[in-house]
Amino acid sequence: MKKDDCIFCKIANGEIPSACIYENKEFRVILDVGPATRGHVLILTKEHYDNIFEIDAETAGRLFSLASVVARAMKKTLNCDGMNILQNNGTIAGQTVFHFHLHLIPRYEGDQVKVTWPQGEISDDEKTELVNMIKKEI
Amino acid sequence: MKKDDCIFCKIANGEIPSACIYENKEFRVILDVGPATRGHVLILTKEHYDNIFEIDAETAGRLFSLASVVARAMKKTLNCDGMNILQNNGTIAGQTVFHFHLHLIPRYEGDQVKVTWPQGEISDDEKTELVNMIKKEI
Repeated sequence: MKKDDCIFCKIANGEIPSACIYENKEFRVILDVGPATRGHVLILTKEHYDNIFEIDAETAGRLFSLASVVARAMKKTLNCDGMNILQNNGTIAGQTVFHFHLHLIPRYEGDQVKVTWPQGEISDDEKTELVNMIKKEI
Repeated sequence: MKKDDCIFCKIANGEIPSACIYENKEFRVILDVGPATRGHVLILTKEHYDNIFEIDAETAGRLFSLASVVARAMKKTLNCDGMNILQNNGTIAGQTVFHFHLHLIPRYEGDQVKVTWPQGEISDDEKTELVNMIKKEI
């Protein structure tokens, strides 16, 4: 399904031009137009899914298979020092376009990307509670 | 293959106990012991791969299929406001254990997770150069 007012639907399906690295029936791989670093890549689904909670497991799997191939190609050509692969869901998580996409962000010494969190703690009781809550839905 | 001195090899294969939510032949899904937020989950491969550049595309795909299922289970049970799915490669990218793992980080209003970058710019010439460089390796 496509969503009429979604810019990533239009880009993924070629109605709006993009710097396209690769495409197949399901996905388009493009350069981010506001790159975090040199060679920042996005992988878009051609079908519309708002986020990870909507995409089916099979499509998600094929997308990440492709991501591993693209990541290797980027590592080979960009001379980067590392890479963050990132997929944001919800405004609070930094999602700005509500169409499923995966970021591949090459990292270089001195870049301005921040991916950090303070390490919290968790008690044994909390572990048991959370494990039981989540596992029953898998 | 397993790597002798790798703590995530030991955890993934059950030699070191963990708060395990799910496992199958290839993967173990656990709670992070130093959680960014309530319900921070890791998916580990049972085989050793240092990072995304080493893992084969098929295994990467099956891992992310599972991730989508786990993400939905987390969303359903944790009452989070969003989620970052994150995979770090290299010290510069925040990787601290050099065994492939995927973070599923539920996000809540007021949490201390930072995933940010300044939006850069890219010229048409740079786009063409990068697209051509990367696409020939895919």
